Amino acid sequence: MRIAIVGAGALGLYYGAMLQRGGNDVRFLLRRDYQTIREKGLRVESVQGDFHLAPVQGYLSPAEIGPVELVLVGLKTFANHRFGELITPLVGAETMILTLQNGLGNEEELAALFGAERVLGGVAFLCANRGEPGVVRHLGAGRVLVGEFLRGGSVRAERLAALFRGAGVECQAVADLLKARWEKLVWNIPFNGLCALLDKTVADLLHREAARTLVREIMLEVISAANTQGLTEALDASFADRMVDFSAGLGPYRPSMQIDREEGRELELDAIFARPLAAGKGKGVAMPRTAMLHAMLEATEPAGTAAAPRGD
Amino acid sequence: MRIAIVGAGALGLYYGAMLQRGGNDVRFLLRRDYQTIREKGLRVESVQGDFHLAPVQGYLSPAEIGPVELVLVGLKTFANHRFGELITPLVGAETMILTLQNGLGNEEELAALFGAERVLGGVAFLCANRGEPGVVRHLGAGRVLVGEFLRGGSVRAERLAALFRGAGVECQAVADLLKARWEKLVWNIPFNGLCALLDKTVADLLHREAARTLVREIMLEVISAANTQGLTEALDASFADRMVDFSAGLGPYRPSMQIDREEGRELELDAIFARPLAAGKGKGVAMPRTAMLHAMLEATEPAGTAAAPRGD
Repeated sequence: MRIAIVGAGALGLYYGAMLQRGGNDVRFLLRRDYQTIREKGLRVESVQGDFHLAPVQGYLSPAEIGPVELVLVGLKTFANHRFGELITPLVGAETMILTLQNGLGNEEELAALFGAERVLGGVAFLCANRGEPGVVRHLGAGRVLVGEFLRGGSVRAERLAALFRGAGVECQAVADLLKARWEKLVWNIPFNGLCALLDKTVADLLHREAARTLVREIMLEVISAANTQGLTEALDASFADRMVDFSAGLGPYRPSMQIDREEGRELELDAIFARPLAAGKGKGVAMPRTAMLHAMLEATEPAGTAAAPRGD
Repeated sequence: MRIAIVGAGALGLYYGAMLQRGGNDVRFLLRRDYQTIREKGLRVESVQGDFHLAPVQGYLSPAEIGPVELVLVGLKTFANHRFGELITPLVGAETMILTLQNGLGNEEELAALFGAERVLGGVAFLCANRGEPGVVRHLGAGRVLVGEFLRGGSVRAERLAALFRGAGVECQAVADLLKARWEKLVWNIPFNGLCALLDKTVADLLHREAARTLVREIMLEVISAANTQGLTEALDASFADRMVDFSAGLGPYRPSMQIDREEGRELELDAIFARPLAAGKGKGVAMPRTAMLHAMLEATEPAGTAAAPRGD
């Protein structure tokens, strides 16, 4: 399959590399790593075994790539205002757009620009970061859940899941994408938020009783909001306990938002906080701790950053 | 009046200096500044005019000071376990003990050791910090409210208020000390907590809409708890607005807890957070934001610090 990778951070580089190794025609839209990847290819340092790809098709503009069958979107969500510019040249009559971005609202923005029927979403459980130019490090996990933006099962979602599996990525098609998104938010909201705000790892938080209790309380707020969103199946409180137990196994893991802050990048506050808060508020769900975390993250962003409206 | 100052940080040094300048026999229990103050006296750099006192009576042990008429307690509250050792030698038949410490529970601990009838409390609204040894800087304010631990008006509370006023310190006796303590907590809990946690000044917080809203929400939680504590008069929500407006006038002020954290000192979490939370919880008041702030402050204290039990 001909695939364009838009947003070649750790996530885009990793899944793009896996898909290329799996025999697909993968074209990366690059910026920082362009020169290195054109000259030396792409190296994946992975817990499942290192590998090196060369040549790798890297481009500086989407017009050079042209229409593809699948656009895989891995942009940081604060760059979503560039969707039109970056994706339009990649879209032909049959093009599917699959966003693997964090949080809520990405599919809606893509649908508004390119039509809802083109859009699928994926929820990626990946621990990865970038090394020097031309290197991506896969630290663990990597499973993807793929589903239709318009929800319900589909042949093409199954086909995309098979595409990932064929490339060595654990992947399942899901009929309720929104449920998968909210399940990931149950993890992302407390851990991304608290680790970034306090500069503490997942293990640091779970070793303190008061912080562990707080993580669980925030998870329960997110679960309450999720259960007002018309999911096909409700999440119950035990899901929070399972997520806390699972997280204890991650050790001193640093979530992406903690790394974003450490490296001076803008935080994905709109997709991971403001939109879930607004969704909960729209259904009358009180999320005081989530709103407080959002307010504190905003207050510690550099001045001049566009502050997203609070959800509470 | 013969007065012993126990806890000669910024607060103890400042009020002790004012009382000595006002003609009292003031004896300071010192540690860090002992040598300098014995040799060179004490310098007060104040917005109301600098002054220098010499000689100043400084001591390294309370036994050298002996019994006094008034013990003025300015210790950081995490040092309250030293009350017995530090204060017992200062107490004679008629000795009054006045704590100017932050938060809740200090009078109770003094009462348990020395008898409730000896104990008074003062709520100090002082902006001050320590400079080099032998110097204290008075940055603004300084008003003190004095009242009986056992509440109600008293002649000796009026006498102490007159003592402070005679030394140039704005001071009033109050019949409801607990109300004054809770009023100060309405300020201390959000500003000490958030400024210390986020390393932001009062002005930094108030310049961000989401953070300003959060400050007010936390104040309303504290007011709700206060109004279950049997105060002689309820606090109403407009008190939060007045406190926010007042705080806007403080500019880039750094509360004591922010300075404590920056200088690597333990935070006064028990007196300012755990006890008010427990008092609210005991009356069924939900304080989710206050509890969350407490949990985050605890989680960012150095490991090994005795974690106070959470109030929520």
